Amino acid sequence: MDPAVNRQFILKSRPVALPTPEEVPMIESPVPEAGDGEIVIRNLYISLDPAIRGWMSDEPNYIEPIPVGTKVWATGIGRVVQSNSPDFEVGDIALGMNAWEDYTLCPAEAASKVDPMGMPLTTYLSILGATGLTAYFGLLDVGEPKEGETLLVSGAAGAVGSIVGQIGKIKGCRVIGMAGGEDKCRWLIDECGFDDVIDYKACDDLAAAIADKCPDGVDIYWENVGGDMLDAVLLNLAERARIVFCGWIATYNDEEKRPGPKNLWQLLAKSARMEGFVVKSYVPQFPEGIAAMADWLQQGKLQYKEHVVEGLENALDAFHMLFDGRNTGKLIIKIADE
Amino acid sequence: MDPAVNRQFILKSRPVALPTPEEVPMIESPVPEAGDGEIVIRNLYISLDPAIRGWMSDEPNYIEPIPVGTKVWATGIGRVVQSNSPDFEVGDIALGMNAWEDYTLCPAEAASKVDPMGMPLTTYLSILGATGLTAYFGLLDVGEPKEGETLLVSGAAGAVGSIVGQIGKIKGCRVIGMAGGEDKCRWLIDECGFDDVIDYKACDDLAAAIADKCPDGVDIYWENVGGDMLDAVLLNLAERARIVFCGWIATYNDEEKRPGPKNLWQLLAKSARMEGFVVKSYVPQFPEGIAAMADWLQQGKLQYKEHVVEGLENALDAFHMLFDGRNTGKLIIKIADE
Repeated sequence: MDPAVNRQFILKSRPVALPTPEEVPMIESPVPEAGDGEIVIRNLYISLDPAIRGWMSDEPNYIEPIPVGTKVWATGIGRVVQSNSPDFEVGDIALGMNAWEDYTLCPAEAASKVDPMGMPLTTYLSILGATGLTAYFGLLDVGEPKEGETLLVSGAAGAVGSIVGQIGKIKGCRVIGMAGGEDKCRWLIDECGFDDVIDYKACDDLAAAIADKCPDGVDIYWENVGGDMLDAVLLNLAERARIVFCGWIATYNDEEKRPGPKNLWQLLAKSARMEGFVVKSYVPQFPEGIAAMADWLQQGKLQYKEHVVEGLENALDAFHMLFDGRNTGKLIIKIADE
Repeated sequence: MDPAVNRQFILKSRPVALPTPEEVPMIESPVPEAGDGEIVIRNLYISLDPAIRGWMSDEPNYIEPIPVGTKVWATGIGRVVQSNSPDFEVGDIALGMNAWEDYTLCPAEAASKVDPMGMPLTTYLSILGATGLTAYFGLLDVGEPKEGETLLVSGAAGAVGSIVGQIGKIKGCRVIGMAGGEDKCRWLIDECGFDDVIDYKACDDLAAAIADKCPDGVDIYWENVGGDMLDAVLLNLAERARIVFCGWIATYNDEEKRPGPKNLWQLLAKSARMEGFVVKSYVPQFPEGIAAMADWLQQGKLQYKEHVVEGLENALDAFHMLFDGRNTGKLIIKIADE
């Protein structure tokens, strides 16, 4: 590619369903120039997350939507190639809310300098990044796991879900995962140490399957999915259950807004709660979370998978993998060699 | 009436919608005889609550449903007329989960002896009973009100809602009530000290009306109603809002189960939670709650209304009033003179 060109994916119009190349095209523009206090990051890796689909829509959300006509955001890690700030030198590794693009221009204070400490750069987008910290703070702070409780995880073979289950095991929970397909289910048992799994694709009556695997009810439900799965779980809550509301991947590409869960009454019936959270609320506590995760990693208590797709030009196609289940592990786009 | 006859309302079949006299007929049976350890209470007053409609259905709930063919439950207060227990003497006042009937036979340990301490007996079914304690523990323990927060109350002119708002004022919240009709709204402002009201019957766009009255968002929502009202509130949550899920009176008589709230995503968008509770969980703390409520009553800080309907035979018709809004205040059936 021409080093003077900045390839960018642009939100040309709000997607109707799964984003198409017409709605989210890749264009070329000049490489930006850093102004006063700004830096330019040459992106090496960007993180593709289901949440990005929400940012493309204009339903009220925890952040303002991506404005139509502007670039699509993603957490990214890369090398500083221009700096007009005393906080960064050319060659530094920087992490930030970047975009699906080769070069990101941003104020220096919007990026963090990363000392990789021997870990691969990609881990700062996965296990030691927002993905791992979502699992860490969501489970510990919102889920409040107690030893011996039953933790049910949806999207269990996904980047967040697989970490949630493993932290649940560290905290002494009985952990059941829901995932689609035999390979994913086997990985959860064999590698991640889940106590049991439900292959929802091989399941006629999901509520009955949950009742079978969670005979004392579900104390903590990690909600990644939504739709009918949430309704099936609601019928199996234990008294004082906590639903940790992390996302609704089943609904993000709906062309029409679907109704809410029809069994929501069970929150009252079981004195249970459903609570949303956003990892950015925990930024002040990130150092504590990263330290704990790094420690568990070193002790071999956490397994993780990364699914790296090469080439920025493949970002949109790769993004679709999140919704049809083709990825196995944290989905990352490699944009350039380190 | 014949003093040897016990009139009883029976759940002959599960109601399809609003219970009909065919589904819940009044029959006559002999006055029961107290066996060993049992007492017979001559009911003086029973409490009619929306929750009873839920107990008539077989959807999974916080208690097993009323079995078909048996009497309809209600909290009741009355005089002991037979006792085979050392804990009660004939003439004592007893409170318990009784029924829509003249005479209730129960084990002595299922009833509580009441020393009225100069308060009318009906208050033990209203402000000093489960109604008042639902407001007390739900708001303070689940809602966690903080000074200066905005508390929005649905069913605000109802028995529970009107107390919730007044406790909110005592705790320093800005309190907005939603009720149907001018008279109810005026009572909330003039007598109960609410800061503002929304007459939902006179309102084209409820979400816009809430946004207007709660410009900084809703910190605590007291959920008595459900349906479209919940959806309108969800669009107006403040960050870290708490929805105290007390009931869904709008849905209890639905012939078909309606879908859940379509704006439930807002729990995630606002890091908010929705939490159910049942007052019976707080039984060990009842003395604390009753003492606090009695204290506020004596200080003139709590206003309450009771709507007493005379005659057990009118119980089913009176029960309908809860759902069409005809009652003003805590609905109580007077069965016999004290």
